[in-house]
Amino acid sequence: MSGRVRAPGAPAPRVGTVHLVGAGPGDPELLTLRGAKLLAKADVVVYDRLAPPELLELAPAGAERIDAGKAPRRRGLGQEAINRLLVERALAGLEVVRLKGGDPFVFGRGGEEALACVRAGVPFEVVPGVSAALAAPAAAGVPLTHREVAASFAVVTASLAGGKATDLAAVAGAADTLVVLMAAERLQGVCQALELAGRPASRPAVLVQWATTGRQRSVRATLADLPALASAAAIGPPATLVVGEVAALADTLAGRRWLDREVRALDTSSGGPAR
Amino acid sequence: MSGRVRAPGAPAPRVGTVHLVGAGPGDPELLTLRGAKLLAKADVVVYDRLAPPELLELAPAGAERIDAGKAPRRRGLGQEAINRLLVERALAGLEVVRLKGGDPFVFGRGGEEALACVRAGVPFEVVPGVSAALAAPAAAGVPLTHREVAASFAVVTASLAGGKATDLAAVAGAADTLVVLMAAERLQGVCQALELAGRPASRPAVLVQWATTGRQRSVRATLADLPALASAAAIGPPATLVVGEVAALADTLAGRRWLDREVRALDTSSGGPAR
Repeated sequence: MSGRVRAPGAPAPRVGTVHLVGAGPGDPELLTLRGAKLLAKADVVVYDRLAPPELLELAPAGAERIDAGKAPRRRGLGQEAINRLLVERALAGLEVVRLKGGDPFVFGRGGEEALACVRAGVPFEVVPGVSAALAAPAAAGVPLTHREVAASFAVVTASLAGGKATDLAAVAGAADTLVVLMAAERLQGVCQALELAGRPASRPAVLVQWATTGRQRSVRATLADLPALASAAAIGPPATLVVGEVAALADTLAGRRWLDREVRALDTSSGGPAR
Repeated sequence: MSGRVRAPGAPAPRVGTVHLVGAGPGDPELLTLRGAKLLAKADVVVYDRLAPPELLELAPAGAERIDAGKAPRRRGLGQEAINRLLVERALAGLEVVRLKGGDPFVFGRGGEEALACVRAGVPFEVVPGVSAALAAPAAAGVPLTHREVAASFAVVTASLAGGKATDLAAVAGAADTLVVLMAAERLQGVCQALELAGRPASRPAVLVQWATTGRQRSVRATLADLPALASAAAIGPPATLVVGEVAALADTLAGRRWLDREVRALDTSSGGPAR
């Protein structure tokens, strides 16, 4: 087709940008101002299962919304298909927001999507978000560090924990506080592995489900007792586990549950500065 | 004074809430929507040295603004004085925003401030923020995790690293990626300690100063070469160090520097959703 041949001096076709945006841990108000601004002018939004659904309302009515799926044991788009989709839409001149739960560069495979953009010559931008690794413990009243209690923390996923006991042992023995993402599916195995790695059975632990949302629930117990209590309370995915002496603070600092904040409805009417 | 005796049935004096708000890593647009909303209706803002100064503009003109200081080697308010200040203002019926660089519960001593509120019977709220521990590496093009490269990360401060070599050795040997906050002051000691702890001298490392701001600068090198290069480039505090194979991705993924984003001026005109 003649359209493929550019006349000399004609402008190059416009290429859009892929914005890898962290959607935060669940509460839609924990999106960043930058994320909200980019959503408001997106042509395409490609979103994950764990991105708060309320955030899709921030995109223009005419924007294309694509569910990249990935519920456990169900097939969404594969990672290669997502990479291709992002690149194709940007090469077609569209502004693409890739909305990822938490932070795009923390267990989010954002690095792979950024590399796909680089290889295709598509400009990209990373917009960090509030990671559930930090926010889920906070929402349950657990600071990851605390003076004279914890001065370091480490973050893994339960799939690492369940898959390679040696790796978990190394990480568990090192940092003062350990955060395990996606912990509900393998809670028994993770807690046993931590005990085998030398963490005392009496070590305080907290499991938080649906952190920072109106559905938030948490269980606090010792490492030894947590799996049975979580099972009795029917706490399933998505859940974050935090293990360490700081977890003992949850009883004191979770006086106001996240639920109290009434985050069910998105209300950001005064979210922008007055200028 | 008779004012101290409440008539039967008279309303109890109103107590304000202390909102411990994460200000994000430096870029004012990385504040959360919730943080912006709370600033917009604050009576008092108590801010840290590392909270982006542009954010103070979001508070009402008549709000009290208190610099809690803490520049290195200079005395700001001590932690006890800050705790007292927060509690006193809230007991006087004021809505207090405690604006802390990064996330309030990650090396921010937010746990101590929350405990002070609990002890005084003052309600508080924790609003997680984007931590520099995650955002500084991202802004330099380094994902903390990456498939088949890194499946875990750990975070410490250089003061821990410098003070207790054994602790650093344990943490350094464990997680795939290591993040060291406040690294510029003790860079030589930290890098040497990491080599002593068994990290190869050839391990990729990135040091990022003023991450996510218009002043951002970074140095990429091996662990062995980094201190000399950082010194030659005069990279000082505040800076974040990230060490691990993921740091090798910085050359590819930092194609667009944060500087390109023109974050110098705060512009959140479309930051709120259209509802």
